[in-house]
Formats: sequence, structure tokens, C-alpha cells
Amino acid sequence: MGDWNRRATLSAFGASLAAAGVARAQSGPGDMRINAARLKATLIGLSAFGRPEGGDFSAGVSRYAYSEADLAGRAYAIGLIRAAGATPRIDAAGNIWARREGRVPDLKPLAVGSHIDSVPHGGNFDGALGSMAAIEILRTLNAENVTLRHPLEVVLWSNEEGGTIGSGLAAGILPPQATLDVVMNGIRRREGLKRIGGDPDHIADARLAKGSLAAYLELHIEQSDLLEKAAVDIGVVDGIVAIDEYDIDIVGVANHAGTTPMADRRNALLAAARLIEAVQEEVTRLPGQQVGTVGQIEASPNVRNIVPGRVRMSLELRDLDAAKIAEIATRIRKRAEAIAASTGTEIAISATDRDPPALTDPRLQKVFEASAAALGLSTLHLPSGAGHDAASMSAICPMAMIFVPSVGGVSHSPRELTTWEDCARGADVLLQSLLRADRMAI
Amino acid sequence: MGDWNRRATLSAFGASLAAAGVARAQSGPGDMRINAARLKATLIGLSAFGRPEGGDFSAGVSRYAYSEADLAGRAYAIGLIRAAGATPRIDAAGNIWARREGRVPDLKPLAVGSHIDSVPHGGNFDGALGSMAAIEILRTLNAENVTLRHPLEVVLWSNEEGGTIGSGLAAGILPPQATLDVVMNGIRRREGLKRIGGDPDHIADARLAKGSLAAYLELHIEQSDLLEKAAVDIGVVDGIVAIDEYDIDIVGVANHAGTTPMADRRNALLAAARLIEAVQEEVTRLPGQQVGTVGQIEASPNVRNIVPGRVRMSLELRDLDAAKIAEIATRIRKRAEAIAASTGTEIAISATDRDPPALTDPRLQKVFEASAAALGLSTLHLPSGAGHDAASMSAICPMAMIFVPSVGGVSHSPRELTTWEDCARGADVLLQSLLRADRMAI
Repeated sequence: MGDWNRRATLSAFGASLAAAGVARAQSGPGDMRINAARLKATLIGLSAFGRPEGGDFSAGVSRYAYSEADLAGRAYAIGLIRAAGATPRIDAAGNIWARREGRVPDLKPLAVGSHIDSVPHGGNFDGALGSMAAIEILRTLNAENVTLRHPLEVVLWSNEEGGTIGSGLAAGILPPQATLDVVMNGIRRREGLKRIGGDPDHIADARLAKGSLAAYLELHIEQSDLLEKAAVDIGVVDGIVAIDEYDIDIVGVANHAGTTPMADRRNALLAAARLIEAVQEEVTRLPGQQVGTVGQIEASPNVRNIVPGRVRMSLELRDLDAAKIAEIATRIRKRAEAIAASTGTEIAISATDRDPPALTDPRLQKVFEASAAALGLSTLHLPSGAGHDAASMSAICPMAMIFVPSVGGVSHSPRELTTWEDCARGADVLLQSLLRADRMAI
Repeated sequence: MGDWNRRATLSAFGASLAAAGVARAQSGPGDMRINAARLKATLIGLSAFGRPEGGDFSAGVSRYAYSEADLAGRAYAIGLIRAAGATPRIDAAGNIWARREGRVPDLKPLAVGSHIDSVPHGGNFDGALGSMAAIEILRTLNAENVTLRHPLEVVLWSNEEGGTIGSGLAAGILPPQATLDVVMNGIRRREGLKRIGGDPDHIADARLAKGSLAAYLELHIEQSDLLEKAAVDIGVVDGIVAIDEYDIDIVGVANHAGTTPMADRRNALLAAARLIEAVQEEVTRLPGQQVGTVGQIEASPNVRNIVPGRVRMSLELRDLDAAKIAEIATRIRKRAEAIAASTGTEIAISATDRDPPALTDPRLQKVFEASAAALGLSTLHLPSGAGHDAASMSAICPMAMIFVPSVGGVSHSPRELTTWEDCARGADVLLQSLLRADRMAI
């Protein structure tokens, strides 16, 4: 029995909702709730696809994009959509869409969704929760016999973990040729797309026109432990951080570790060490939530008894404020100049990728806050340090996201865990916010 | 045409020796000189074996132990020994010996030699110079019709670059089973030994009894640029440094680079960076010629967007004074404790190998000094930061070494270069020192 099961059984879950004072005395849109048991059942159902052989729910999933497990998970989701009376369609980028018509002509659709692919050796909640919650909202609206003013689009984006590929292609923010020729987890995306019913040769057909959606809302697990530490129910996301990527190349001179005096060395690894410390100092020098990471390092010739002649390493900087991380990069470049001089090396820092920040819509943030408050749930504003499909959608329409707590902040791991109570709370806030947004002029 | 050729042609070489005042007016042992042209010819001859296809002398050699090139180089050397009227024999450790009898009964042999294997992509002088000089001394003694008091043993050690394997086995300082099962450059030593005429099943037959040689003398290139910088002809080696090897294992927590706040990270690569800087500081804190090197580093998972959870790296410390590097290691361990605490990581530093220092014999140092002075050559005392077969021999008999300058201090590279003048000077000092040692009661 996994952690998930010890922490929250379904019966305990019902009791805790009651204890939280969620009453159903009156009838009205504010009283509408998703079916928590049904949501849990579909999350468990989805977890069967990509689960390691012989494992239980706690073993997590390897359901990376275009794999057999991804195909099976998508088929499962398509079945749920059909069972909810909607007609799934797959766009050229492999995204699964399901439309529920609205009652006011000419209003643009509201969209809710997430992704069902996972990283290799990932967990049961990242993407899966937002996806199953979106489908659960379809079912709830059916059960309550409610037709929104706007059409509703449920969308399950393809290949989020590869770098928000499905949503990025739909938003037109990825160069299709370069994107589709990448091989990841042993599968070229072009071939992968064909497998899942996409059409790489007509990828432009997946493009959404700017302004073609009224809004996009997404529920996701937090992937950090700010909510858990603060004992808060719902995170209202201020935005998805800008990510600036750099390659660092340090060239010194490889030389015999026994015969080269310390003073004569041009040690690329010593320069790398000083630069890693400088990154730490420059990132933490300013207040705020910015992060900077050297995650990858390769030394050459990487032999015990040779002074390293060359080191290549990665640098990424993230913050909601793109100017702030640009300033940090400038400071790091200055530090690198001094380090190169002190070590007799040459240091080149090349920008390789720049994802702008995706700020969430302030009106929709307020909608999330009001819905949570009405449900008796506490909220906290926070940035998303991870990328999400919602960031792609910000190029097309107003966008907003909420997070529910991750136990221990763990994600991208079989140990990834969000309690069933928190899953249901997030889905209820998403549903209520959708109903509120539907009444707004957006 | 390579550098070597531009720098020193044979005709210029003769002229420079004349300019150095090397006169042959008198006749006597002090006037005996090796044949510089013959030495050069055999060094060029040996360089053909392992030379990259289509390259010239300046392309260096890949003549690593037990390779086809090593076999061919050994056959060439054996041919030279036979041509010098000696009978080569190969011991169980693959070392090639050639004996020239002495005239005083019961004196133990004086030995001179080096190795002819190279590192992959190595140069034409490391080992080759000392080996060809030893054979040239055989030829010179023949030409001058001189019989020494002691027997003379010329020895070409097998597999020096793998870690003085041939000499280490002969000296009995390597554990044969563990040593012979190592695979390097794709060849298991046990199989390699069979290829070159050794006998891995009777490796103890290669053992030299302690005291079985009167002395061992070796000429080698410097592999650093102290002699070149000081414009000195001959380096008299004080000893071969102690080498202490450590493995460092740093365990932190791998986590999402976007969602893990800086303050919550347990970043193994940041700890590694601080430790690399600490090694630099602790090694250079004390005066002296000690060196310390982190040459190898592996981070895990080594992905751009994950905080590194684990780093493994190497550390080696070298100095003539074993106590000094032990003290430096103690200081590094203390620094590691503080770094582990500051980064939330665990750092384990494990000693994996300890080569004691090999001090050269003071009487033989004086012999080298006197011989050089008599030849009008300047000398400088220095330690050897690199390991040498002579270090193995120090377990058996009095041992001493001289170095000749390496242009730019380059070694283990095709660019390795010692001028032909310096090659001849070194061989002449070796010959004269052998003659002087032969007259001593050692």
C-alpha cells in the first residue's frame, strides 16, 4: 500500500469535506461540486497506463509522450470524453479537444485542461490531475444539467514534458520544423505525432488564432512545497517564470597533474568551480524568488592525473521578471571575466534559449481567489517555477492557473503525491471559477 | 615539417656542441661521448612505430602498452640490442633486459633504462629518449672497446604509462593478481603480457631481489618547464613525489531547478565547486612544490533543469614530503565538513591509493652533478612530479635520475619536444655518470 492510500482514504475524504463546512443546503451555481470519488477513480484509472510491471499506484508512471503508455492513456481519456457525451477531436499537434456548446451565440470558448504525458519514472498527478479534473467538470455540468454561456473546450495537450510541445505548436510559439525533428526518449516527434493521430505535415492546422479563446484555466500540482509549508489549500499563480538558458564553455590548458606547478596551471575546472559559486552569489544577492542552476557539467579530458583543460556547463536563470534575470546574467558575465583572468582561462557564455515570462490574467486571479474563499479555502499567491501549457496559451488568450499542494514538494518522481482532498478542492475551485468566468465579459 | 625539425637540425647540433667547448683533445674515460647522430637516428627510427597514418615525426605516437605499435617498437629495440652484440631477454613481466658483462667478478650490475610505451596520442621523447640513450651507451662502450668493472644491464620496462607496471612487478611493489586483471586501452594486462613475451602465470619470476643491482640510473625528459625557464641543461632529480589518491563522493538532493527555492537546495555541484576551491587554497597555502588536482568530475543526473543531487570527483596530492600532503588532506577534510554543513550535503573522502615518495641516492646525485660540470653543462635540482620506473627501482637499489628540458614543458602530447642537442647532452651525462659510478664502491 502506497503513501497515497495511507494518507487519504475515500471515506476519510468525505468526512473531511464535511468538516471543512462545505454545505449543500441551498441550490445554485455556487453549490455545484465535482464528484470527488469519480475524480479519484479516473486518476487511478489513468495511472494504470505506464505503471511499472508489478507495481501499485505508488509506483508512479512512465507515460512519456508518444510511448505505448501515452497512447493507452490517451485512449482512456478519449473514452472518458465520449462517455461524457462529447466528441473528441485530435488536432495536427496531437492535442485532444472536446467541446461543449454554450447558450449565447458568438461567445468564444472558455478552455480548461492540462496534459496526460509524464516524464519517465514520473508520478500520478503532474498533468493527470488537471486533465481528469477538466473531464470531471464536463461530467459535473452534464449531471447538473447546466449549459454555460460560453462554449467549453476541454483540452489535453500532447507532449507537455518534452517542453510544452502540443500547446506551443497550437500557440504558434515553436518553430515547427526544428521542434518536430527532435528525438527524445528514443522517439522522433514527427513520428510520435503520427502515432497519436497528429499530422506533422500540416502542423499549421493546429494553430489557434490569437483571441480565439475567451480564457484558459488550468489546475496543476505545485511541484514545490510552499503551499504545504504555509498550510494553504490553493496557490494562485502570478505567472510562469521566464527561463533564460546559457551554455558556458571554459577553455584552459590540459596538463600533467604531477609536473605542472600550481602557479602555471590554466585549470578550466577551477574556473568552473569559481563560476558556480559566483552564480550562487549573484542569484541570491537580490531579494526575491529567482533561481539559478548549473545542472550539467562535463570536464575534459576528465582524467585523474591531468589538469582539466576544458569544461562545458549549463546555466539557467528563472524569474517572473525577465529584466531581473537579464541583470543577473550581466553580473555573472562580469564575474566570469574576473575568473577567466584569475585562472588564465577563456570563458564564453552563450545564450541558447529565452522563454519569456507568462503572466496570468489579474481578473482571473481574482476569480480564483473569490471561488476559493467561497469554498472556505485559503489561498496564497506564488510564481510557477516550472513551465506549463498555460504559458503557451498566454500568447493566445487571458490565462490563469491554480496549484494544489504537493506532499514534500516532490514531483517528476513516483513519490509525487497530492492528497485526494486537495485534488477535489482544486477541481472544485476550477469548476467554480469556470462558472464565475462564464458570467464575466471576457 | 614539424617543430622539432625547425628547431634543431643535425648540422646545427654538431656546431652547437663545438661551441659549448666540448673538446676531444685528450683521450680518457672523461672524453667518451655518445654518438649524437646515431641516437637521433634511433629515436626517429622508433617514432615510426605508433605514428598516426600519414603523419610525420611531429605527429607523435600512440604506442600504448601491448598494442601492435608497442610490439613493433619492442621488436625494433630488440633488433638494436642484438646489433649492439648483446642478447636480449624478456622477463615474466615483459621487461626487456640486455646484459654486458663487467671485468670484476661478483660486482652487481649497474642498470640504465627507461620505457618505450607511450600514452595514446603521446610524444616521441617520454621514455623513448632514456631507452634509446641506454642502447646508445651499449654501442658507445662497444665502439670505445671499454669494459666496465660492473656488469651493465640495459632495461626497457614494459607498460610504464599504465602505472610503472613492468618495473613495479619487477620490484615486487605491485600486487600481481590485481595488477594483471586491469583492462586499459581495451587490453587486459594479463593478455597483453602474453603478447609481448611475458608470463603472467609466473610473474614472481620477474622479481628482482633487494640489493641485486648496484644502482639504477635513468635519463628522462622533464615534462615541465622549470629547466627551460631557468635556461639550465640538466635537472638532477631529488626524488619522485609521493602521490596520494582520493575519491570524493558528494550526496545532496536532485530536485527541479524551477520549483526548488535557492534556500531549500542541497546542491551537490555547489558543494563540489566549494571543495575544488578549498583544494586550491589548501594546496597553495604552504610554500613548496606540492600540487593538488581535481581532474575528474561526474555530476548526476547531469541535466540542465535539475539541481545536481550527486557529484563524484577525484583528488590527488603530490609532494616529495609524504607528511606534508597527508597534512593537506587533513585540512581538505576539515574544509569538506564545513562545506557539507553549508550546502546540506554529505561529503565522503576515501583514500584509494598511496604511492610513497622515492628519494634519489645522494651519492648518485653528486655523480650526475660532477659529470654535468665536467661537460660544461649547468644543473638544477628538482623533484619529479610524475611517476617513473626509477621510483620502483628505489625499492631494490640506489637510484637516481636526470631530466633534460622539455620545450614549453609539454609532454604526453604529439607536441612533446626535446631538442636533439639536449637529447645528446642528457645521454652524455648518463654515460659519464655510469663511468663514474662504475669506479665507485656502490
